[in-house]
Amino acid sequence: MKIPIVFLGTSQAIPTAKRNHIAMLLHYKNETMLVDCGEGAQRQFRKAKINPCKLTRLLITHFHGDHVLGLPGLFQTLALNSYNKTLQVYGPRGTLRFIDLMKRLFIPRGNLKIEVKEVSGKFLETQDFYLEAFPLKHGAPCNAYAFVEKDKRKLDKKKLQELKLPSSPLLKKLQEGKDIEHDGKKIKANSVSYVEKGKRISFILDTALCENCFKAAEKADLLIAEATYTEEDKELAEEHRHLTARQAAEIAKKSQAKKLVLTHISQRYDGREKIILDEARKVFPKTEIAEDFDKIEI
Amino acid sequence: MKIPIVFLGTSQAIPTAKRNHIAMLLHYKNETMLVDCGEGAQRQFRKAKINPCKLTRLLITHFHGDHVLGLPGLFQTLALNSYNKTLQVYGPRGTLRFIDLMKRLFIPRGNLKIEVKEVSGKFLETQDFYLEAFPLKHGAPCNAYAFVEKDKRKLDKKKLQELKLPSSPLLKKLQEGKDIEHDGKKIKANSVSYVEKGKRISFILDTALCENCFKAAEKADLLIAEATYTEEDKELAEEHRHLTARQAAEIAKKSQAKKLVLTHISQRYDGREKIILDEARKVFPKTEIAEDFDKIEI
Repeated sequence: MKIPIVFLGTSQAIPTAKRNHIAMLLHYKNETMLVDCGEGAQRQFRKAKINPCKLTRLLITHFHGDHVLGLPGLFQTLALNSYNKTLQVYGPRGTLRFIDLMKRLFIPRGNLKIEVKEVSGKFLETQDFYLEAFPLKHGAPCNAYAFVEKDKRKLDKKKLQELKLPSSPLLKKLQEGKDIEHDGKKIKANSVSYVEKGKRISFILDTALCENCFKAAEKADLLIAEATYTEEDKELAEEHRHLTARQAAEIAKKSQAKKLVLTHISQRYDGREKIILDEARKVFPKTEIAEDFDKIEI
Repeated sequence: MKIPIVFLGTSQAIPTAKRNHIAMLLHYKNETMLVDCGEGAQRQFRKAKINPCKLTRLLITHFHGDHVLGLPGLFQTLALNSYNKTLQVYGPRGTLRFIDLMKRLFIPRGNLKIEVKEVSGKFLETQDFYLEAFPLKHGAPCNAYAFVEKDKRKLDKKKLQELKLPSSPLLKKLQEGKDIEHDGKKIKANSVSYVEKGKRISFILDTALCENCFKAAEKADLLIAEATYTEEDKELAEEHRHLTARQAAEIAKKSQAKKLVLTHISQRYDGREKIILDEARKVFPKTEIAEDFDKIEI
């Protein structure tokens, strides 16, 4: 099953005519997760023709304004649209306080149920996937996130037909990887099924290069990483604790990621983003730069 | 002198692909005033190619989210761009508390000087203009605003040449409307000068119809008013304390305004705004509907 990711915004601190503030959507089965929610995100939903009421979870990397100032407006629009779930909100240390402030920021209309958790390490596990947070090094408490789909054993339908296996309790056992007996014959699970590797999608934004970047990105099918600077401005990157395009590519390479998409693009490179791409591709050729409304399926 | 007004956003609570949240700019001499600052306003500045650092004053009608959620982002961008003035912020009762909350909402970068005042009645007067606030009737404390340019006495250069009046102190007296003596002759100020009427621009948004609507709009050269509903949805308008297009037009007509521009357009009329316009024009023909980035000169 392909997992779609939509880039609702791709800019750094100051938006440009082409790039709105950062926000990324990940759809998986009946889950729609938003990673960061920069100012104007609710209008980006509208432009992308995605109903924000589909949201189930919100993963916040950190509370610098450009990553979160779309939250109050999104909350209000969800409330006005009679959002009827409880929105699950995750973030680093400080999240409870900030979300509480946001709810008091303006006179709200409607009611919205939110559950907020400050997370680190594996913080959610379902039958199909888990979510993991990795503390990073930035000017504010900041998390990288990994969405990890679990490996799934799939039955080989052709082989099952050959064996004339009808009964569902037996099929269930095979799917669980257990060997069975049928018509007096032993059937090994591995002989009629195979394991489909789950996908891993990692989000690293706003950090200086640190050990947890590599842990978050490890063997990711898709690594989405900030590339706020190029090597030319490496001193600024260090001062503001951001990655250069080259560093993002090095993370992808060393972590054996399959694909890298760069985002959080600074206005300083407006119209000349190619220098970011070229720098990264020298280290990790399978790199792209995200544009607003790009959709990637992994 | 023409006074330009730029519509940076024209939507009601929920933005559409075409309309961003409400925000309006008024330029006058070395003043740039922003009336309301909906989410995404800073990006609208960028798209309109207007430097937000030109801002001198911010007039907030009320603290419903759709009118103010662009403030934190705008504050951050001003700080990042080394805004070096003290931004004057005006609003209704409650403004001090809300602005204080906004400053604590996220981890700010840079420093920004802001002076906040809760206003009602005439609250600012300069040599050239004054600003007046009129409390309205809405679900939250809410102000209408009027920008009033003062009348100016102008000298008739042709007549001055005929009289061969060279001396500047004498000219200054005439400009002040005082009669003078020259070459033994009395010269009446009115005979060599005329009074140029100042412009009045009024902003009425988010209110039920009330007496102060008419006071704010009185003889306005330009009345900008909300038209969130049409008469068909008059019950909703009353419930949510908003104007219908017809009511906005009636305000313009009874107040003897010269021109009416409708804004704060609801998504329910997306693509069929003509019904708003038609309803208003039946009462007040000189009506237009604002689109994002429209510029009007009065």
